[in-house]
Amino acid sequence: MNLALLFDEDFTGTDRVLLRGRRLEHLRTVLKASTGHQIPVGRANGAMGTGEILTLTDTEAELKVTLSQRPPQPLPLTLILAMPRPKMFRRVLQTCASLGVKDIWLINSYKVEKSFWQTPWLSEENLKENLTLGLEQAKDTVMPQVHIRKLFKPFVEDELPALLANKIALVAHPGTTAPCPVHLNEPAALCIGPEGGFTDYEVGKLEEAGCQGVHLGPRILRVETAVPVLISRLFDACG
Amino acid sequence: MNLALLFDEDFTGTDRVLLRGRRLEHLRTVLKASTGHQIPVGRANGAMGTGEILTLTDTEAELKVTLSQRPPQPLPLTLILAMPRPKMFRRVLQTCASLGVKDIWLINSYKVEKSFWQTPWLSEENLKENLTLGLEQAKDTVMPQVHIRKLFKPFVEDELPALLANKIALVAHPGTTAPCPVHLNEPAALCIGPEGGFTDYEVGKLEEAGCQGVHLGPRILRVETAVPVLISRLFDACG
Repeated sequence: MNLALLFDEDFTGTDRVLLRGRRLEHLRTVLKASTGHQIPVGRANGAMGTGEILTLTDTEAELKVTLSQRPPQPLPLTLILAMPRPKMFRRVLQTCASLGVKDIWLINSYKVEKSFWQTPWLSEENLKENLTLGLEQAKDTVMPQVHIRKLFKPFVEDELPALLANKIALVAHPGTTAPCPVHLNEPAALCIGPEGGFTDYEVGKLEEAGCQGVHLGPRILRVETAVPVLISRLFDACG
Repeated sequence: MNLALLFDEDFTGTDRVLLRGRRLEHLRTVLKASTGHQIPVGRANGAMGTGEILTLTDTEAELKVTLSQRPPQPLPLTLILAMPRPKMFRRVLQTCASLGVKDIWLINSYKVEKSFWQTPWLSEENLKENLTLGLEQAKDTVMPQVHIRKLFKPFVEDELPALLANKIALVAHPGTTAPCPVHLNEPAALCIGPEGGFTDYEVGKLEEAGCQGVHLGPRILRVETAVPVLISRLFDACG
């Protein structure tokens, strides 16, 4: 937690917040903070700054916050991801949030096992928690939007073309002929398949919707590695 | 496992191997392979090709292998990494192996907790297993070398300068003024600190040894994210 993210419900006045639970625990045990200390804070979807600890007990900390800095730039990226295996999903979410991805679409694909959609990590509360952890790691405040689409064909045929408008649209797929571009200076949409990849039918449908197939070389990467590798390649600056 | 990595002890003849344990399990349960099937294989530190399943029982599979393709290019990178937290270490190792890093130095740093060095993941057997998993994921055969240095100062003063000779030498450190370069066409050495970063003293010593401090922008990334992001940025092609 390089920054404590503050939500509306944490505020007790315009510049006063009460922290409990995980963030309090972090203050006490990791930062070993005490009254008078200043810690980096940011308001969800708002400005960043510092919080001065006014009081600190076993159950809560009261902070006086000063918020004046802008959060880092978001990435101009729409990330369309075949729903990852639950074990990996949390980490992928946190990684996306820390890299500055703000628009995440979780879609179905032939090789997405039905059970993946049952994971508790998809609940609104758990999505928010893991995105928060990623933002707090990276010192960002702007909460990504996560969209869940459990049917591939309606998504690709009815929604995807509009999502791709005025963007460089790519589908990462080993074995395609074009290498993944570097240093984009414009908005992009990037589709990443499941373990085992999109099927040929799915790649065909994504291409029909406007995506270009691109590869990363002969190495096959796990989704959790492919996400940072592709994003770092597409955009020079992470913020 | 996109390729089964074969070791000397697996060979029963010049083109015959016996698979047991994890790789057999994968053949049976994930690939659902049977006699006559061909699977991608590679000989550790050697060529890649295909293995035809001659017999398959509950306890072993016999394959006839044909090995003629070269593995993908290694990255010309010496990666010097403050020993990560054990929970993260396995994944970082696998990621490095799948990205083509062949030279990994695990070093001490003020913020590396002493307990990190006690992890069983540092045993020779476990290092080999996790590097193997990374290579099998990426379809590579060349086993990375891992060097363990539990004392920071002797490493940086006595060994590091020679390691950096004829290489672009970098230390990733938030807050430095130079952005991390992109598209290197020459060998590089990259130092990555622990959670919380190298101390100023440590950055100073690394700079004295010849490293330039570089940053990735305002976002602070976890080590397991920073590794693929930095590598992807430094080298266009992963293989």
